[in-house]
Amino acid sequence: MEPTRKRSFWAWGWEDALLSDDERAQLAQMVGGLLHVEPPAVTPLPTIERARINAPRISVPTGLEDFCDASDRARIEHTYGRAFPDLVRGFSGDFSRAPDFVAHARHEADVATLLGWAAENRVAVVPYGGGTSVVGGVECAPGERYVGVVSLDLRAMDQVLEVDERSLAARIQAGATGPLLEAQLAEKGLTLRHFPQSFEFSTLGGWLATRAGGHFATLYTHIDDKVESVRMITPKGAFESRRLPGSGAGPSPDRLVIGSEGALGVITEAWLRVHRRPTWRSSASALFDTWQQAVDAARRVSQAGLFPSNCRLLDAREAMLNGVPTGGRNVLLLGFESADGPRDAWMARAISCCREAGASEIEGPAVRTMDERASRDRDSAAWRGSFLRGPYLQSALVSMGMVADTFETACTWDAFDSLHTAVTRAVTDVMKRVCGAGVLSCRLTHVYPDGPAPYFTFIAPGTHGALLEPWAEIKRAASEAVIANGGTITHHHAVGRTHRPWYDRQRPELFARSLAAVKRELDPAWVMNPGVLLDE
Amino acid sequence: MEPTRKRSFWAWGWEDALLSDDERAQLAQMVGGLLHVEPPAVTPLPTIERARINAPRISVPTGLEDFCDASDRARIEHTYGRAFPDLVRGFSGDFSRAPDFVAHARHEADVATLLGWAAENRVAVVPYGGGTSVVGGVECAPGERYVGVVSLDLRAMDQVLEVDERSLAARIQAGATGPLLEAQLAEKGLTLRHFPQSFEFSTLGGWLATRAGGHFATLYTHIDDKVESVRMITPKGAFESRRLPGSGAGPSPDRLVIGSEGALGVITEAWLRVHRRPTWRSSASALFDTWQQAVDAARRVSQAGLFPSNCRLLDAREAMLNGVPTGGRNVLLLGFESADGPRDAWMARAISCCREAGASEIEGPAVRTMDERASRDRDSAAWRGSFLRGPYLQSALVSMGMVADTFETACTWDAFDSLHTAVTRAVTDVMKRVCGAGVLSCRLTHVYPDGPAPYFTFIAPGTHGALLEPWAEIKRAASEAVIANGGTITHHHAVGRTHRPWYDRQRPELFARSLAAVKRELDPAWVMNPGVLLDE
Repeated sequence: MEPTRKRSFWAWGWEDALLSDDERAQLAQMVGGLLHVEPPAVTPLPTIERARINAPRISVPTGLEDFCDASDRARIEHTYGRAFPDLVRGFSGDFSRAPDFVAHARHEADVATLLGWAAENRVAVVPYGGGTSVVGGVECAPGERYVGVVSLDLRAMDQVLEVDERSLAARIQAGATGPLLEAQLAEKGLTLRHFPQSFEFSTLGGWLATRAGGHFATLYTHIDDKVESVRMITPKGAFESRRLPGSGAGPSPDRLVIGSEGALGVITEAWLRVHRRPTWRSSASALFDTWQQAVDAARRVSQAGLFPSNCRLLDAREAMLNGVPTGGRNVLLLGFESADGPRDAWMARAISCCREAGASEIEGPAVRTMDERASRDRDSAAWRGSFLRGPYLQSALVSMGMVADTFETACTWDAFDSLHTAVTRAVTDVMKRVCGAGVLSCRLTHVYPDGPAPYFTFIAPGTHGALLEPWAEIKRAASEAVIANGGTITHHHAVGRTHRPWYDRQRPELFARSLAAVKRELDPAWVMNPGVLLDE
Repeated sequence: MEPTRKRSFWAWGWEDALLSDDERAQLAQMVGGLLHVEPPAVTPLPTIERARINAPRISVPTGLEDFCDASDRARIEHTYGRAFPDLVRGFSGDFSRAPDFVAHARHEADVATLLGWAAENRVAVVPYGGGTSVVGGVECAPGERYVGVVSLDLRAMDQVLEVDERSLAARIQAGATGPLLEAQLAEKGLTLRHFPQSFEFSTLGGWLATRAGGHFATLYTHIDDKVESVRMITPKGAFESRRLPGSGAGPSPDRLVIGSEGALGVITEAWLRVHRRPTWRSSASALFDTWQQAVDAARRVSQAGLFPSNCRLLDAREAMLNGVPTGGRNVLLLGFESADGPRDAWMARAISCCREAGASEIEGPAVRTMDERASRDRDSAAWRGSFLRGPYLQSALVSMGMVADTFETACTWDAFDSLHTAVTRAVTDVMKRVCGAGVLSCRLTHVYPDGPAPYFTFIAPGTHGALLEPWAEIKRAASEAVIANGGTITHHHAVGRTHRPWYDRQRPELFARSLAAVKRELDPAWVMNPGVLLDE
């Protein structure tokens, strides 16, 4: 898209989009007020020249030079994802866990060549898409039993290879980022409509490997639901499923690949179900005096069979943090979109669900119709807006020595009240104890007929050089509360390395053993992204 | 429900619901006219007294007597499913492949005890739900390397154990048949709304093990989509997933169990997403002069984001066979249902899709509103009607020496025309060559945005004593055409033993090896339903 823009070597996103010192100063004031503490100091941002990097343990072998890069810059850029500990370590200049080199696969043959060499030489391979993992999914620390570690960057494989306009499906290479694949689909009036917060940087392969959550608050909540077939290169060869709209032929092969986080192989391409670009949209907001009423409204809408594209519930603090003026109330954001004409009746019924739940005010519905071109332009404009700004704020907070992160889960409706209460209490308590202060906010990002996916944000004061331990304590408390109260350790952020202790408790033990058996079959040398999902 | 009714020992369904001699004579006339052949003779129906059964190779071991039954009646009743070859063999009195005994598990402990004993003694275990498999899924022919084979009947485990009305979910034992679980859910105003044609007899466990297709033509097409969590007893212990409305934590454990066809363990219970009972329904029919127009209409409806509960397309012959008067035209049956008030706008848009595709006539929409009680009664009435009658007709045709069966698939829309043409030609040709005549009809049972699930019925003349070979030739021709033209060997009938040759070609080879690795982990003695899905 904009090939001349540079990604920050340590922070979220584009280097030129990081908060300026003035913006950080404003943010410091805001956060100080929010937490009732002194505004944090606006520390200078780090430069790549100060990054400390380890010496590589292995060098690029003969035959792989064409697509491999052992430069410091490449190694630094592939050391971390964008989890809180990654930001902290990156900010401090610690790149001691850099991969030995980076492979930029141009096509599947490069992938196969690299995996063959790695398996033979006991070199760990960490597949790398957008490098936006917030769970340690691309961490290059395989341990001493490997002679080295290579980061396998898929971003040169970024093409939409085929479009089936009749079936509304497209064959897309795994390295395509959101903007790249959307631009190619837009030429046919189509769209994947998978818009995670990392959309600008993350790749289709990464979405598939991590079961990423997207744009739709209902129905197509995960990328999983859009997969028609998938192709993965393993150390034992290619694994490719048949393009099918539905099947009952044995356990789903796709579902073994989706969520495998690079531990079984490298997803290289997939057929995805796409949509015609919406030409009709309607949005509305429902305001609620109490959180209970608001949750009740979200449940009613999710159980009414309406399938809104947006059904996001922000608590009062979350609304405030996101600049949505609610006068201290909770707000449910509703949206319907269609490429097939108006859906007014759908929105009307969703609004009446909100009234039944006790909404104190309804704003909208506001309807926009647009031709395909306008739709495209407004999309772009919208996505350069506030939603994509969130992770930049986190990086800025880290740069000012704050402990700031998000975590998310999903649970059934009957479990939600106690989960919400327990998580709120646990995180608030530990922030107070460890950091002296802190705020926590909650929104529902996705809703299902049988339960919501709550998403929490916390901010607490910290000190440069001592950020990781308080963060780990908060993360531990949150994760324990989630697991103890019927949640999943992740609804759409993935397991990676960060969530392993709780994932290991959540999943059936016999499933863990099954997955390990599959890994031994597909990756007998155990070189694929060791450390995520399971241990040898 | 009606415990005094007896199942036929050889044919589909209730003994007292088999076609009478008069009805068979009428059917013979109809089929003779359809095929332009002499009406087949109305042969007398078989009696169980004439059934020939093998001597058991093993007897019920000490400690298992309480729930095991080695009587001839029990063994005969558990010898076959209800595939065409099962009906033929059952009609002829051949029960030489009867299991050595039948275990009627009362609770999970019985399952675990039986599996432990079987694994230790190299006895094959064939899980048995409703015994309605049409793909050889309950065939008791494990081969010489087993000392014997036991049919494990789950039907004593038939309770709805818990209902979560807030989340709309229920924990249900695997042995519950459709009517039994619906009756228990109805007490709370709820319904699973999974209505396969086998609904009266088949069980939740069977549906899960085979990825059964149900009532909904869109959205919730398979039982898969309703699973919140599942519990399976394997020879290595219990495998139970967490109740979650959605998750992104690694590959889905549920999806490994769903479709495993008893090869990994015995599903004993599951949490299923249920619905409030619909109180509003609307139905309409759209008639099309050409098949192309009708298919185009089905595609338009499926891609419009309307999610009708019914969207079944019958070709002219299928309509005639099902007693739907269309004057030689194709008919698309549309239905919407809701527990949340009217959905008129949805139906209106679906009808306009049909008009856009060239419908020559629209009948309806006809709206019915009903209170919960009325809804229940009309449901029952409807389901005792024509849909459930189909398999009885097949049994009657077999009793008169006809070759009559169905097969089904799914493919993307872009592949459908050539698949439909190739299947029609292949099956018609082979019927003509092998049987001298024959008719084939097609309907779409389920539609997805990216493709339909076509369902074919064929009827050809045959001869008692020589039915299996022509059937196998037709089945082979159909399956080859399906696989060669981008279809799945099964959309919702499962793989079993019948579909193995084509399933083996369809699935990724590395998935087959993965599945075998999982089986070695969970069932190292390889005693669970050997022969389905994979070989040792």
